[in-house]
Amino acid sequence: MRAGTLAPGKRIRPLLLVLAARDMGCNLEQRAVLDLACAVEMVHAASLILDDMPSMDNAQMRRGRPTVHREFGEDVAILAAIALLSRAFEVIAIAPGLAALQKSEAIAELSSAVGLQGLVQGQFQDLHEGAQNRSPDAIALTNELKTSVLFRATLQMAAIAADASPLMRQKLSYFAQELGQAFQLLDDLIDGCKHTGKDVHQDKGKSTLVQMLGVEGAERRLRDHLRSADAHLADACHRGVATRHYMHALFNQQLAMFS
Amino acid sequence: MRAGTLAPGKRIRPLLLVLAARDMGCNLEQRAVLDLACAVEMVHAASLILDDMPSMDNAQMRRGRPTVHREFGEDVAILAAIALLSRAFEVIAIAPGLAALQKSEAIAELSSAVGLQGLVQGQFQDLHEGAQNRSPDAIALTNELKTSVLFRATLQMAAIAADASPLMRQKLSYFAQELGQAFQLLDDLIDGCKHTGKDVHQDKGKSTLVQMLGVEGAERRLRDHLRSADAHLADACHRGVATRHYMHALFNQQLAMFS
Repeated sequence: MRAGTLAPGKRIRPLLLVLAARDMGCNLEQRAVLDLACAVEMVHAASLILDDMPSMDNAQMRRGRPTVHREFGEDVAILAAIALLSRAFEVIAIAPGLAALQKSEAIAELSSAVGLQGLVQGQFQDLHEGAQNRSPDAIALTNELKTSVLFRATLQMAAIAADASPLMRQKLSYFAQELGQAFQLLDDLIDGCKHTGKDVHQDKGKSTLVQMLGVEGAERRLRDHLRSADAHLADACHRGVATRHYMHALFNQQLAMFS
Repeated sequence: MRAGTLAPGKRIRPLLLVLAARDMGCNLEQRAVLDLACAVEMVHAASLILDDMPSMDNAQMRRGRPTVHREFGEDVAILAAIALLSRAFEVIAIAPGLAALQKSEAIAELSSAVGLQGLVQGQFQDLHEGAQNRSPDAIALTNELKTSVLFRATLQMAAIAADASPLMRQKLSYFAQELGQAFQLLDDLIDGCKHTGKDVHQDKGKSTLVQMLGVEGAERRLRDHLRSADAHLADACHRGVATRHYMHALFNQQLAMFS
């Protein structure tokens, strides 16, 4: 569990959650925001452990280290992922700083992002339909399930902590959708590069948007999504700009890696 | 997900939950009790799918059918288990008939029963320490993690639905502990029999209480636990006897299989 969660990573989801909660007026001394941020990172870590398994992507390296199943065995990898996932829900259910209604809403968001309408469905589509010729729309849908849905839960949990209005939550949902698409394009672009700390060329034989649109076309599409994400975010958070600054810094840094 | 959950099984945990809730005065037209019962069965089904995997018990048959990974592949088995587990928490989080506080308490019980202090730890100990010579106490502890802990969560969820007092919850916790020990002994005894619908002699090479105490000794110990379970249960539920009747019928039927 520690190897899968605490290895150096970008911590994008918990950072987004904390920054968005602050932008919506949360006091960060509220321990609850950190609990929610930890929960989403644990879910993400669990998903990475399982995605790397031999029966899935069969990855050897992750975050610069051997993947969890290579270091500890497949049985321990599966059990660690299950324990992380359960612990994520437990951390929210017992969080001292959240009202009961905030807890159940946050758990509803997070659990639905994992299951059949989220990560699980995205990974299934990627494994079972990825090798076929897919339309750009079909690829975008898989990418939404693989990435946008957990971003959406992340931002909804920030909104729940901040007692944000339904309208603000709707705007954050649009933001998450665009951000997820941009992020998945970035991931596919980076898959062609070295020095990422994880296996590269994992997408060989998979139909991706990069393959379909070329590197430049994919980068253009990425920047379109990013612009749209930025507009929705600006619309949602009037009070602060921390999330926007973070998002731009993240993408600029990552895009510099291959251009 | 359907294959792992809906294949014929004894449905012990959901039945226990529903009967105990009724014995504590719940109206069974309360949809919430059924939602909780479904959640615990989904968690149980997820744990069976994973226990059967090649890296764990490598089982071929379960509930009279090929195991999920044999029928659908290891990747789908893992994803189905994750989706079932997430859906279990989601079902509770969105249950229309529960107050927010009941939801977060039920999720806290269920998630802690799955993770490092529950099923995951029990399965880990069984896989990694099962082949060693263990003391009866060490075996009983593993059995508690593998079985009692989810029974405890099952009964605590019944108590939460019924707004039971802390004292009643404590008694139910003792009941669950004894019931789990009796149940694990039953499972080990049955492992030597045929016609169970799942792989038999799975325990070969594992240290079990049956091996240590002999069949008769194990059966005696089982009956001791059962008597003790019964006393705690009678103490907890004054209003009804449905749970007690069910427990006796279940054990009598199962014990008749090999004696």
